[in-house]
Amino acid sequence: MQNIELPADIPKRKELLDAYDRTFGRIHQTPLMTSTQLNDLYDAQFYFKAENFQKAGSFKSRGAVNAVFSLSEEQSAKGVCTHSSGNHAQALARAAALKGIPAHIVMPETAPKVKVAAVKDYGAQITFCPPTLKDRESTLAKIQNQTGATEIHPYNLPAVIAGQSTLAQEIQKQMETEPDMIITPVGGGGLLSGTALAVHHFFRNTSVYAAEPEGADDAFKSFHNKKFFPSENPNTIADGLLTSLGSRTFPVIMNHVNDIVTVREESIIKAMRFIWERMKIIIEPSSAVPLAAIFEHKIEVKSKTIVLVLSGGNLDLDYLPWQ
Amino acid sequence: MQNIELPADIPKRKELLDAYDRTFGRIHQTPLMTSTQLNDLYDAQFYFKAENFQKAGSFKSRGAVNAVFSLSEEQSAKGVCTHSSGNHAQALARAAALKGIPAHIVMPETAPKVKVAAVKDYGAQITFCPPTLKDRESTLAKIQNQTGATEIHPYNLPAVIAGQSTLAQEIQKQMETEPDMIITPVGGGGLLSGTALAVHHFFRNTSVYAAEPEGADDAFKSFHNKKFFPSENPNTIADGLLTSLGSRTFPVIMNHVNDIVTVREESIIKAMRFIWERMKIIIEPSSAVPLAAIFEHKIEVKSKTIVLVLSGGNLDLDYLPWQ
Repeated sequence: MQNIELPADIPKRKELLDAYDRTFGRIHQTPLMTSTQLNDLYDAQFYFKAENFQKAGSFKSRGAVNAVFSLSEEQSAKGVCTHSSGNHAQALARAAALKGIPAHIVMPETAPKVKVAAVKDYGAQITFCPPTLKDRESTLAKIQNQTGATEIHPYNLPAVIAGQSTLAQEIQKQMETEPDMIITPVGGGGLLSGTALAVHHFFRNTSVYAAEPEGADDAFKSFHNKKFFPSENPNTIADGLLTSLGSRTFPVIMNHVNDIVTVREESIIKAMRFIWERMKIIIEPSSAVPLAAIFEHKIEVKSKTIVLVLSGGNLDLDYLPWQ
Repeated sequence: MQNIELPADIPKRKELLDAYDRTFGRIHQTPLMTSTQLNDLYDAQFYFKAENFQKAGSFKSRGAVNAVFSLSEEQSAKGVCTHSSGNHAQALARAAALKGIPAHIVMPETAPKVKVAAVKDYGAQITFCPPTLKDRESTLAKIQNQTGATEIHPYNLPAVIAGQSTLAQEIQKQMETEPDMIITPVGGGGLLSGTALAVHHFFRNTSVYAAEPEGADDAFKSFHNKKFFPSENPNTIADGLLTSLGSRTFPVIMNHVNDIVTVREESIIKAMRFIWERMKIIIEPSSAVPLAAIFEHKIEVKSKTIVLVLSGGNLDLDYLPWQ
């Protein structure tokens, strides 16, 4: 692990614990699932942290709930906003609905209908814009100006990172002994940095790994070059992992993550299908990336206890990657 | 409910309890899952008994394990046999492997490759035959002759019916108060008659309903005409529900089931997709039939507590019914 200075506002031990208490009862405590077949194949003990069963269908509910319920009364009255076409949009819309405050979501015109419908179902205000980052940001700025809503960034925000840390905190309460390692997928790094911080503060002997698609390997490059690389023209079916690391998530990852590995697209598809077929649960492609790293023998697991984080279960069932 | 004389060997209270003890630890205790969205839609409290997570992927493991572990030593030495292209084949192969005895499975040449592979993975001996009932039965008779193996019928066998009753017995241990009703799919009637017997002996105020595809409505016709009708040219995507009731399951159903209703194919597909999308679990089409009955308002559920049995999760992911 590398020493890169941590920004002053990275959540501390106390803030992680507060996030756990604040989100408790407002999110699901998701199950740890097992697969005898997989254990036998690798002579290891695997647990799957099933965030596909999380509220709004992904771990993003943890960060969104923590951020929304951390707002002051004045902030709450003006609501929250973000630009997102993915799981964060649904999670934020649901968290705002739970608190009874307005949510303004900027979505690209090209966003899948199912995702738009889910956000609408939670009662959020949707503003469509052309599908470029520039348009998304300028549209969001306009809405912020009009409404005074607080922007809840999908990952590069202390309250969101602290919220994501509740996943590893939950793992510790669920397991009798600590796992040897936890492996998460990595996109913007909110889940990974939250997990790494929780492990740093609350676990004794657990390592944190991340797996990333080869076609979106900015975190891998940043980590191994000790220098931030943005995500450029990413191309992967793991559509939750397209974004770049942030100014807060990158330093946390450099300080507290053991390694980042990459995996091929065909391994992601194979891992996704394994989980669907053998474990009988629906996961989105991003969730399959850690198991893909196991399939590619990128991380040594023999005789170890490993938690693989299944980040979410939202996808369009009309388009499956093996078809 | 109707009075039709019950065969003398229908499992009694004691045999149901014995089946629970015998199967305990040899099958999964499957979770009861919930869906807030569904509860809100119908102003009712739904629980899903998730047998898609059962060993070998379906409730059939309950009956198979009970039957296999009820055999005498002499019988065990000669093994078990059956003809099946479906979930019973996998369940019996697994149960025999667990006990360390031979399993001979007759499968039609047309059986899906995934199902053949699953049976082979459990170490069973497979004999292929032409895909007619006559060929399946004559091939099975030949194997029985050669091996002395005991035939384990998929549903019309006391030990299998007693095994399936463990599902409802488990429900009673899992719920704080009894549900108002339990709804199962019905094919050969093993699950339904096992459930009905358990409810008759161990529940106070619970009704048992079954749902069946319109395209395979022999149980519906038999029940309402109080006379056995065989399944003729059944046609439904719920491929676990094609068979006729048996000489043991039919009388149990007549005596202890409250009602049987039918559902349309499009409702089955809609219900299956609802469960995949909203609950993030993989179920086979047969599992969706009870929820389809709710969607069609065939059973009144307002303000009630209802357990819907998800019978299994085995299907070929290359062919989904909405594609």
